[in-house]
Amino acid sequence: MSSSISFDMLPNTATKPPRSVIVLIGLMGAGKTTLGRRLAEHYGIPFIDTDVEIEKACQETIPDIFARHGEAYFRAGEHRVIRRLLEGGPCVLATGGGAWMHEQTRALINDRPDICTVWLHTPMNVLLKRLSHARTHRPLLAQGKTEETLRSLAAQRYPLYATADIIIHCGDESVEQSVQNISKTLANTSLPHHVPVALAGHQYDVTIGAGLLQDAASRIIPHLSNKHAIILTDETVAALHLDSLTRSFETHDIRLDVLTVPAGEASKSLSRFEQIMEEMLARGIERGTTLIALGGGVVGDLGGFIAATALRGIPFIQIPTTLLAQVDSSVGGKTGINARAGKNLIGAFWQPRLVLADTGTLSTLPQRQLVAGYAEIIKSGLIADPELFAWCEQNGQALLAGDPATLGEAVRRACSFKAGVVRADERENAKQGGRALLNLGHTFAHAFEAEFHYDGRLLHGEAVSIGLHMALALSVKMGLAPQEDLQRLDAHLHALKMPASVKDLPHPLSSATLIKHMGRDKKLRDGKVSFVLLRGIGQAFTCRDVSMDDVLSLLQEEGFPA
Amino acid sequence: MSSSISFDMLPNTATKPPRSVIVLIGLMGAGKTTLGRRLAEHYGIPFIDTDVEIEKACQETIPDIFARHGEAYFRAGEHRVIRRLLEGGPCVLATGGGAWMHEQTRALINDRPDICTVWLHTPMNVLLKRLSHARTHRPLLAQGKTEETLRSLAAQRYPLYATADIIIHCGDESVEQSVQNISKTLANTSLPHHVPVALAGHQYDVTIGAGLLQDAASRIIPHLSNKHAIILTDETVAALHLDSLTRSFETHDIRLDVLTVPAGEASKSLSRFEQIMEEMLARGIERGTTLIALGGGVVGDLGGFIAATALRGIPFIQIPTTLLAQVDSSVGGKTGINARAGKNLIGAFWQPRLVLADTGTLSTLPQRQLVAGYAEIIKSGLIADPELFAWCEQNGQALLAGDPATLGEAVRRACSFKAGVVRADERENAKQGGRALLNLGHTFAHAFEAEFHYDGRLLHGEAVSIGLHMALALSVKMGLAPQEDLQRLDAHLHALKMPASVKDLPHPLSSATLIKHMGRDKKLRDGKVSFVLLRGIGQAFTCRDVSMDDVLSLLQEEGFPA
Repeated sequence: MSSSISFDMLPNTATKPPRSVIVLIGLMGAGKTTLGRRLAEHYGIPFIDTDVEIEKACQETIPDIFARHGEAYFRAGEHRVIRRLLEGGPCVLATGGGAWMHEQTRALINDRPDICTVWLHTPMNVLLKRLSHARTHRPLLAQGKTEETLRSLAAQRYPLYATADIIIHCGDESVEQSVQNISKTLANTSLPHHVPVALAGHQYDVTIGAGLLQDAASRIIPHLSNKHAIILTDETVAALHLDSLTRSFETHDIRLDVLTVPAGEASKSLSRFEQIMEEMLARGIERGTTLIALGGGVVGDLGGFIAATALRGIPFIQIPTTLLAQVDSSVGGKTGINARAGKNLIGAFWQPRLVLADTGTLSTLPQRQLVAGYAEIIKSGLIADPELFAWCEQNGQALLAGDPATLGEAVRRACSFKAGVVRADERENAKQGGRALLNLGHTFAHAFEAEFHYDGRLLHGEAVSIGLHMALALSVKMGLAPQEDLQRLDAHLHALKMPASVKDLPHPLSSATLIKHMGRDKKLRDGKVSFVLLRGIGQAFTCRDVSMDDVLSLLQEEGFPA
Repeated sequence: MSSSISFDMLPNTATKPPRSVIVLIGLMGAGKTTLGRRLAEHYGIPFIDTDVEIEKACQETIPDIFARHGEAYFRAGEHRVIRRLLEGGPCVLATGGGAWMHEQTRALINDRPDICTVWLHTPMNVLLKRLSHARTHRPLLAQGKTEETLRSLAAQRYPLYATADIIIHCGDESVEQSVQNISKTLANTSLPHHVPVALAGHQYDVTIGAGLLQDAASRIIPHLSNKHAIILTDETVAALHLDSLTRSFETHDIRLDVLTVPAGEASKSLSRFEQIMEEMLARGIERGTTLIALGGGVVGDLGGFIAATALRGIPFIQIPTTLLAQVDSSVGGKTGINARAGKNLIGAFWQPRLVLADTGTLSTLPQRQLVAGYAEIIKSGLIADPELFAWCEQNGQALLAGDPATLGEAVRRACSFKAGVVRADERENAKQGGRALLNLGHTFAHAFEAEFHYDGRLLHGEAVSIGLHMALALSVKMGLAPQEDLQRLDAHLHALKMPASVKDLPHPLSSATLIKHMGRDKKLRDGKVSFVLLRGIGQAFTCRDVSMDDVLSLLQEEGFPA
């Protein structure tokens, strides 16, 4: 009956080493041992129970270890045992319920792309039934009050369990049915990537994968503070993806409201903000009500700002559905709406509790949008990640052709890069470098957009694409970066038919107009225009001393009319 | 020529012990030694230079101590020496330029009401002239680059120097003139109180005193990030206090814009928010531009929310001019505007860099407003500060009569109390107690206000005053608090003619209406109305399990029609 394990059937085989480990996580009583044993048999690989291994290693029972040394001591020992076990060959590893709460243990497992984590999500009533006779060897239940204890553990742990690669709902099915469910899901699912965004006082995950929307509720619900959530989306995205999202909530006892805005930049207005805010308040939101933004940058920015300011801040979850939103606005917590004086001038920093980047949604994206999002990925490479830039040169073609694995990997790399930058400078306070580096190409891009953006003729990412070329060309002109690096960037943009010059604008813009727009940039400090320049690919720095004569002369060389 | 020191001439003698110490702070070269020596002579008390005492104690020169042990070692030793010196009798104490940067040294001095700190604020050009020949014994200047070093020290230190009790501008005047300036100012000024508000990642001071507006610029400018500030005020306050504030900036190179809104709650609207925001953006604000809110709660709440959301957050300074704003909204960073669905439903937490509570502005306040603000002070005592409540019983009459020293002390006590609560629970996340306790009386008050507030017939503080009586009466009815405590509260409210019952409402409200309003409170959690109850004076706790039957029956006993 048992078939040999074949991760080769999984879509993301390319990055998977030959060894494979399945790690089971879940509350006590979830069935990790029973199911795990059968699953291992099914795949013909060993089953290992970490609790048993710990007792062997310590020559003590787990209740004794808890009683004598406390939980912290136990978790540290558990970490060492798991680290050793993961060095062995393929296996099914059942972990203790608290193992996944240990940050280093999670990192150990998440850092290994050949490990698949499975959360056995078992309903509370089933857990209670199973545990009613089994208290003595469960140290955390020893005080009695099983139900209260379990509910409190669930509240603490489910948000982290929900970051498992795969979530399996195990109710009253037979062990055999559950094993079939798991092996089928394993065969059909490409494993998601998890990018942790660690900020002062707040940490969240960007979970990236194809098809996440279908089971979104399982990943979202552990993060909810009460049983009410509001989905904000736009008309275009609603038609494509809203059903998948709401269907995933069907078997759960959550009140979902949906609010829809027209697609497009015009929805980032104060009047739309007011309308949505008043509708939410009229629906009786509480401080624990979560706002879920399903859509691109407009919905994310508007929704984030509403979440930041409704009742002085309510929980926020993002489900970005464009490449630009997945690689850019989903990390970093910048939210905002537009003012008469310019874009994003009214806003707040407000971090989401979770970002679900379903790369499957990108298949419905117009090619122009894909190109626009890709420009931000190239940007990350140019700033400080030359390896990412080289990866782009290798994989850009496949990415723009919509290859799912390539898209997933690109989003992972770009989010990881941005997470590192944001962690170091959450509120863009660094005097030099820091978060401001993410504006590479943006001084030019914003000036282009000021002219074209609101009518949709030039997308933000298209403006950035040209802006990247301009920033590097300016750096070369100022003698800061080698000419070869500019040739390399241009070759890549050209190969992928990306916007790179004045000819790619809807109509040519005069140098004078451009320089006037630059003088209105949001990042002015003491009236000076700020630029991000390059010493070469992967070596960006901020600079407030660019001579506008150099800019003017560059614009002329680049063919902008005077 | 020298006169004996007479702090007895100062207005706040009541709290001043017989001993008195004048501590001089300021940058190197500011004149602490020269001026200090003459000042001591003038008062006939000893002059002590802490640097000299440190060298004596260590048997080493200060440059040697720096060189051998580093600055941290030096500051710790300096702290010990200053502590010892402060134990001596009256004197003039000149401190080293960095002494005031040491948190414990500051606390040591600020905790002693018999010490007066004086910042000798000397212009940069004067400092440079004095220091041009004096580098060797100034360890922080030893690397050369005097001007650059001084400017960098000024940027770090001036925000803290500006918390001195008295700021004296010393330019090119003779020593004798400066001594006269200082002794005149000392004789005419009541020393301000400083209440530090220490939050995670942010700390600021509430400075409280009569006449602070006249020299506000000296305390504000050190906190500015650039040379541009916007004052937001309302028409009523502008007529009374705007001139004092703007005049204090006259000799400084700061660009000041003034924006004025109509007085009254109607200005806390999204349309007013938009108008002010767009005007600020049109005036070219940058991320370093500071918004200064001069006025009562409306201007503070609106201004704070604008500061929180302009360019995703700009620096904010509050100058509250009502008693309510000084004791309540100036501490804690709650900002917001009103929505159709209710008050303060759109907002953010945004902490000021500085709060200047000039109790002199309270003399222009209508009596009703003073009474309304006083209710929040009584509230602080009722929650967890029985000593403050007893102080109110002793001093309430003098306070409502406008006695300046009593007002200053009341604001200090109420701000200190609130700072402690907010420090422990900045964002009102505590499951029990915490910041939510500040809502004592507010479940009733908000229900009253929902009926009357917007037309000005019932002030917030008036509603709170009745609400305090109701909350304690409910606690007594539920058998939680002793009847005598209710009698004590009622006696105090009655003695001061404060609103306390249904008869003090503009017209009687039916129980049914009140209970309907309560069901719409912002603090609902899972649909349940939240109350703050009392086990007695100074013993508040949060409670979500109040039976609405008890509330209904109380309302009937209190004479609310059915």
